[in-house]
Amino acid sequence: MRHTSAKAPSVVDRVLDVFGAFTPDRPSLSLSELSRRTGLPLSTTHRIVGELARRGALERQEDGQYRVGLWLWEIASLSHGMGLREAAMPYLEDLYEATHENVQLAVLDAPEVVYVERISGRNAVSILSRVGSRLDAHATGVGLVLLAHAPAEVQEKVLAGPLKAYTPKTICAPEQLRRVLADVRRDGFVISDRQVELVSLSVAAPVYGHQDSVVAAISIVVPAAGTEPRTLVPAVRAAARGISRRLGAPRATRQPDF
Amino acid sequence: MRHTSAKAPSVVDRVLDVFGAFTPDRPSLSLSELSRRTGLPLSTTHRIVGELARRGALERQEDGQYRVGLWLWEIASLSHGMGLREAAMPYLEDLYEATHENVQLAVLDAPEVVYVERISGRNAVSILSRVGSRLDAHATGVGLVLLAHAPAEVQEKVLAGPLKAYTPKTICAPEQLRRVLADVRRDGFVISDRQVELVSLSVAAPVYGHQDSVVAAISIVVPAAGTEPRTLVPAVRAAARGISRRLGAPRATRQPDF
Repeated sequence: MRHTSAKAPSVVDRVLDVFGAFTPDRPSLSLSELSRRTGLPLSTTHRIVGELARRGALERQEDGQYRVGLWLWEIASLSHGMGLREAAMPYLEDLYEATHENVQLAVLDAPEVVYVERISGRNAVSILSRVGSRLDAHATGVGLVLLAHAPAEVQEKVLAGPLKAYTPKTICAPEQLRRVLADVRRDGFVISDRQVELVSLSVAAPVYGHQDSVVAAISIVVPAAGTEPRTLVPAVRAAARGISRRLGAPRATRQPDF
Repeated sequence: MRHTSAKAPSVVDRVLDVFGAFTPDRPSLSLSELSRRTGLPLSTTHRIVGELARRGALERQEDGQYRVGLWLWEIASLSHGMGLREAAMPYLEDLYEATHENVQLAVLDAPEVVYVERISGRNAVSILSRVGSRLDAHATGVGLVLLAHAPAEVQEKVLAGPLKAYTPKTICAPEQLRRVLADVRRDGFVISDRQVELVSLSVAAPVYGHQDSVVAAISIVVPAAGTEPRTLVPAVRAAARGISRRLGAPRATRQPDF
């Protein structure tokens, strides 16, 4: 659990620790598992979980295990990411429909990206990302775009490593990564080639917000075999530009293509 | 704020009150607004909000207002509704692509439905729902499907009213609603005609879970003018059946159509 001070955790911390105990591979947990994962006594866990369940922030399943509740999800749907998602969805739909491949929307939480939306056809190449999941930014198309436009201190921190190798093709050398980020800034897109899985590649482009800074990135993930990724660049950039325009980005309303 | 006992609210309650202060029309709030909406002293609000922001459960914007944070959204993405959404998405995509109209996935939280997913084209008829938003169950296609399969005591509570009229076409008479719910159970779908807005109608069908109970409903929302809704029924039912099969519903793997 992530406490920033050495003093005893507050009740606020304990509540967040209970929420944070749920993970993608364990979205349902028993009281005793929650107690173990949070490090809280069983009686304290019981009391907090009871209060959270009474308010709908957690849900008790038929098997007695707990899960994140509908109420919390409704609140979370008001987050910045979900507003972004609403604006982006029609453009992601268009991109999906034109290609029938995986289409993704992500934001940066360095050193990782968080996937805010993903549209996948039943026959699209399978991918590791999931809505709400994370991957290391340096290894993904959306991550390279977001890093390229991140503040210098964020870039330096990521460049300082460690840079995990998902595949032999993952960019793990800081100097190579630095060059790629410069290329992304110059080109306005990136092709991330088999960096996450050897079967797939992605084409990503930046989404600008109303203050003309990059607020998100979109990508399309396609099979590495038999795809000429350059043919996908115009569609991905056009969708990114459409979303940027909808978000009020000054550059997306200027005439010359960016 | 929704406290079930008369005693002083616990810290857990206070944390949830802070989350609950954010609403679709006010997703960003200042400290003093949070204090006013929660009824907590400004100093207490300041302390709790500070702790929540430190952990990423809230985010402080550049204008100093607070918003629900990415961390909370990630946790909420582990809720039951989002698992359902992942299973449903490919079928919702197919339905969207075949029609280019609004496609929705909703669950019941009587007397309302909560929209877990919505896919809208840029040219689809505009609708009131939004991901994470609610509408009265009796007035919507998905709501009629979910009510029809809800436990008797839930139905009776809704039938006892009040039943809000969104339009002159909204079903507000308990006996009429009771008949419609019986029809839905018999037919396996419903056409909700101009009940929410006079410009649109919806066609909805139930999604079954692995215990063969109805866990969600899907619908397609189309312009009321110029649409023959019966032509949409097979597509909506087929998509609902596909999602049910993916969720392991016994009835969705049996041969005769349900």
